[in-house]
Amino acid sequence: MSLHELNTFPGVTAEPDAATQQFVFNHTMLRVKNIEQSLDFYTRVLGFSLVEKRDFPDAQFSLYFLALVDKAQIPSDDAERHTWMKSIPGILELTHNHGTEHDADFAYHNGNTDPRGFGHICVSVPDIQAACERFETLGVNFQKRLTDGRMKNIAFIKDPDEYWVEIIQPNF
Amino acid sequence: MSLHELNTFPGVTAEPDAATQQFVFNHTMLRVKNIEQSLDFYTRVLGFSLVEKRDFPDAQFSLYFLALVDKAQIPSDDAERHTWMKSIPGILELTHNHGTEHDADFAYHNGNTDPRGFGHICVSVPDIQAACERFETLGVNFQKRLTDGRMKNIAFIKDPDEYWVEIIQPNF
Repeated sequence: MSLHELNTFPGVTAEPDAATQQFVFNHTMLRVKNIEQSLDFYTRVLGFSLVEKRDFPDAQFSLYFLALVDKAQIPSDDAERHTWMKSIPGILELTHNHGTEHDADFAYHNGNTDPRGFGHICVSVPDIQAACERFETLGVNFQKRLTDGRMKNIAFIKDPDEYWVEIIQPNF
Repeated sequence: MSLHELNTFPGVTAEPDAATQQFVFNHTMLRVKNIEQSLDFYTRVLGFSLVEKRDFPDAQFSLYFLALVDKAQIPSDDAERHTWMKSIPGILELTHNHGTEHDADFAYHNGNTDPRGFGHICVSVPDIQAACERFETLGVNFQKRLTDGRMKNIAFIKDPDEYWVEIIQPNF
């Protein structure tokens, strides 16, 4: 579909209000049961960096902010890093309610069975074949391998809470 | 918390595998009931641009990809735009299962009541006071106004499916 058709689609405001000019889609928040497992998955498997942690001891939860950027881009000054990570797109916020990791029966809902809503997050990679082979080597769980189903150009892996992470390659 | 502490937190891999170097946190997918209402909200209220639509008539659903960027950044060539929007962070994917908008009883689950999981997306704005006043003028529904609760520096608005959209200001 052409850009003209997209801009004239029902509901679409083609010329955004100037007031929205510097708006940034900053982050997506997911609740996770076991923060150590989630940090391992997002940093070791997917290459995210932990760029901020905020604790709320009274309410017994902590927030973890992760960015998938070149390490050299991350400001070392704490205040500067705080402002930076609130001003860029592509941040992942993980919420950990303390203690959930000790409850064997506790599980979050990944949105893909009833009641449905949120579907997945997606990581774009330069070489999807190589990325999927590496995920296999690392023992990552797949929801859909490249060879499964009709769409051979996308895969879905699962994070420790079974949230789906789509894997795509821009020019594939 | 210092960057050193963040890098040595349990679970964190401080030096990501070189294989992840060009990985990009590309998008977040949400299912929406009424696509026209959602496109109106995300383009008119928040300033997103619709950059791609993909139809799956056999399975009766369509995908809409939105980017919150300067219009000048959007490639007009369709193939170029497709590759571009799969290579940048901060894309929002809306999935519309055809016909849900005609079912009065149909509703998606926003993740913030049981069973919980996904929490919210977040848009960063240059002036949160001005942004919230504009949302009030536009009749947007709030989950939390700036003046509500303890945290006076964040607000939450609700999209047409009642997904929460956090509003923050980087230096506030």
